[in-house]
Order: sequence, then C-alpha cells, then structure tokens
Amino acid sequence: MRIAVLGTGMVGQAVAARLDQLGHDVTLGTREPDETRTRTATDRMGNPGVGTWLEQHPSIGLATFAAAAGAAELVVNATNGSASLEVLDQAGADNLAGKVLVDIANPLDFSQGFPPTLFVKDTDSLGEQIQRAFPDTRVVKTLNTMNASLMAHPETLAGGDHSVFVSGNDEVAKKTVAELLTSIGHTDVIDLGDLSTARGTEMLLPVWVRLMNKLGTPSFNFKIVR
Amino acid sequence: MRIAVLGTGMVGQAVAARLDQLGHDVTLGTREPDETRTRTATDRMGNPGVGTWLEQHPSIGLATFAAAAGAAELVVNATNGSASLEVLDQAGADNLAGKVLVDIANPLDFSQGFPPTLFVKDTDSLGEQIQRAFPDTRVVKTLNTMNASLMAHPETLAGGDHSVFVSGNDEVAKKTVAELLTSIGHTDVIDLGDLSTARGTEMLLPVWVRLMNKLGTPSFNFKIVR
Repeated sequence: MRIAVLGTGMVGQAVAARLDQLGHDVTLGTREPDETRTRTATDRMGNPGVGTWLEQHPSIGLATFAAAAGAAELVVNATNGSASLEVLDQAGADNLAGKVLVDIANPLDFSQGFPPTLFVKDTDSLGEQIQRAFPDTRVVKTLNTMNASLMAHPETLAGGDHSVFVSGNDEVAKKTVAELLTSIGHTDVIDLGDLSTARGTEMLLPVWVRLMNKLGTPSFNFKIVR
Repeated sequence: MRIAVLGTGMVGQAVAARLDQLGHDVTLGTREPDETRTRTATDRMGNPGVGTWLEQHPSIGLATFAAAAGAAELVVNATNGSASLEVLDQAGADNLAGKVLVDIANPLDFSQGFPPTLFVKDTDSLGEQIQRAFPDTRVVKTLNTMNASLMAHPETLAGGDHSVFVSGNDEVAKKTVAELLTSIGHTDVIDLGDLSTARGTEMLLPVWVRLMNKLGTPSFNFKIVR
C-alpha cells in the first residue's frame, strides 16, 4: 500500500520503518523537506536526527505534507496532538478526501509542565475534532495508548500479549486498519465502536504517563484481561 | 480490623462480604438503618435487596454513616461518586480523622445518559476533592477501575492475573491498603504515587464503560504488561 506518515518524530520514524519493512511504499510527510534532511544532530535521547535516519532508510521517501498525502492510499497522523489540525490543513482536505487516516496523536498539553493535561477530553476527542474538520476522510483512532517502539514492534513485550484499541465511524476503514495492525504483530485488536470511543482511549494517557513515571520505562502496555 | 463500608449498593455489599469472610469486623454504613432493613425487594438484575442481603450476612453490622465510621479503624467509601462528599459529611470529619479512607468511588455523571461523563477530571479528581474536604483523613484511591465482583474476588478472572492501582499521600496508609488488597487476592498492586495520580485511574472509567458495552460483560480488567 502507498502510505504517507505525517510527522518525522519518534512515532513517525518507528511506524514508517515498520511499514517499510512490511513492504509498503512509505513516504514521510514534513513541513519543509529540504530543511528536514539537514537535521542530522543526535538528540538528547541518543537517537539520530531525522536527516541521518532518512539516509539509513533509503527506501522511505520524504515529501511535503500535501505531496505525501496526495500520493498515498492511507495516511498516518503521527504528529504532536497540538499540531495535528494545522498539519492536516497543510496536507489539504482534497488530498485526504476518501482516504483512511490513522490517527495516532494524543491531545497532550505540556504547557504547565509534568504531568501533562489533555486539551480536549470526556465530551470530545482529538480524533473527533479531526473527523469534523475533514468530513470526507475516514478517521480511525488507534495505537495512541502505547509508546512508539511498541506500536511498531509489539512482539518485543510479552510476545505481543497486550491490547490495542480501534475507534472509527467507517467499518471498512476500521477493518483495513485492524488488518494492518495484525500484520505489524498486534495480537489483540479491540474495536471499541464509533469515533466517540476515542475519548476513552485518549483519556488513558494520564494514567499511562504516571505509570511511565512509576515503572521508569515506557515499555509497558495495557492488556484487557477477559 | 474494624471496618466501616459506607454504601449499601453492589460495591458495598461485595466488598463488605469479602472483608467479613476474611475475618474482619465489618459494619455497613447507611443513611437510615431502619429504612435500609426494609429494602427486601429483588432488583432488576436479580440481586436481593440489601435488607434480605443483611439477613443472609448476620455477622455484618448496620449503622448510620456516623456510627459506623466512628467505631471503625478503616473506612471504605463505596458510595456513588456524586453522593460521596455529602455521605462523608454525614459520617463526620471527627469520626474520619486519622483514619484510612479507602475511596472506591468514581465521579461518573449519568445526567446526560449513556455514556456517562466525569464531573471532575484531568486537573483534579474525586479522591483529591475528598482529601481536601477531610484533611485529617488518609485517603487512598483504589479498586475503582474494575467491577464490584472483581474487587472482591479477583481470582475469578484469569486466576487474578490483572492489575489494581493505589494512589495516596500517606505511605503508611497505602501500605495498609496494599496489604488488604493482597489478602483479598489481588496479585499486582501498583502504587502510582500521590493522590493526584487518582486523576489517571478515574479517567480510566470512560474506556472501561465502552469496553463493557463492547465486550457485553463487566468481567474484565486492565493488566499492565511490563
């Protein structure tokens, strides 16, 4: 499948690399591709800059948000939640129309420091905000309840014995996403229902953040035992 | 231990019966004990009224909120979240002073129907509201992330292989509660930190409600796989 991954951070890199490994035709979307390629400095976590990372992944393309989305059959929103609507505007409603948009972002607000709060919650969600802004796009919320490494390689924790949630209004789009998740290695894909159920999965983030703090690692996940 | 369980609903009954079974001296707290004993009609879920239930559990006492709390070493708040502060006011700050208060309640607002919303969230929690209202009481939030049956009998699901969270500002109180949880059969007690971490566990309820709807049963629980 031709897939655009919007966002060049840890989440975008992890998901793009895994989809490329699975044989998909993957292009990263970014604001200014020429500038993005110059980012080669290693970050404070020891990860290479995205420019270096792109050199290490020659089969992954780089394009503007609009060009990447326009050429894609499926689009992944791997941007920060606070930037998502603006980035998707840059991608363009026409380029997103009719397509499945896999929304991984979380509405985290770090403006008051740690722990972050949520800038939308309970009676609305970022997933629903995106769906309302792009009514011709088929938004599926998923993967936002675990860290980037586990999104891409769930088998690295307990052999993949943990859960991932799917929320969306379009049944066919959810089926496409569930199949993609299964191909990545997710063993327990739970379809919660329509996109309003994304309120619940986005509201998992506050306890996720506290668990990360307590456990001293982001390598954990929720399993729904039943 | 002398334990008061405030609230006579499903949660209060389940927790009281289990603590009684473990040998504790348990008293249910209620608004008007004489009226409570007259409630013998079976509810629409097929459960006996609390009056009948009390006859079936002769070793469990019944008293006013104030009398039950005053005589207890440890108090359990098993009331509806929307009634909790008023019930604890009836129990009385003096009767609660210095004691461990195990807060099981959730700030669910059903006024707009299903799904419920939360009347406090994200930057505050019901647990913290209770702690502020009763500063001399040692509030520990726990058990609010699963249904009544699993609170009392965790071994009935996957042999108890799932998680329960503890939040509170008093380390000794949390240790007491963690030991009580372990004695009940909870195998994975996660101390998240101070009481502000209850924001995260209370915000688990929206996804819990959607999961119950999806799975068609309340017999499931979160496990933190790590």
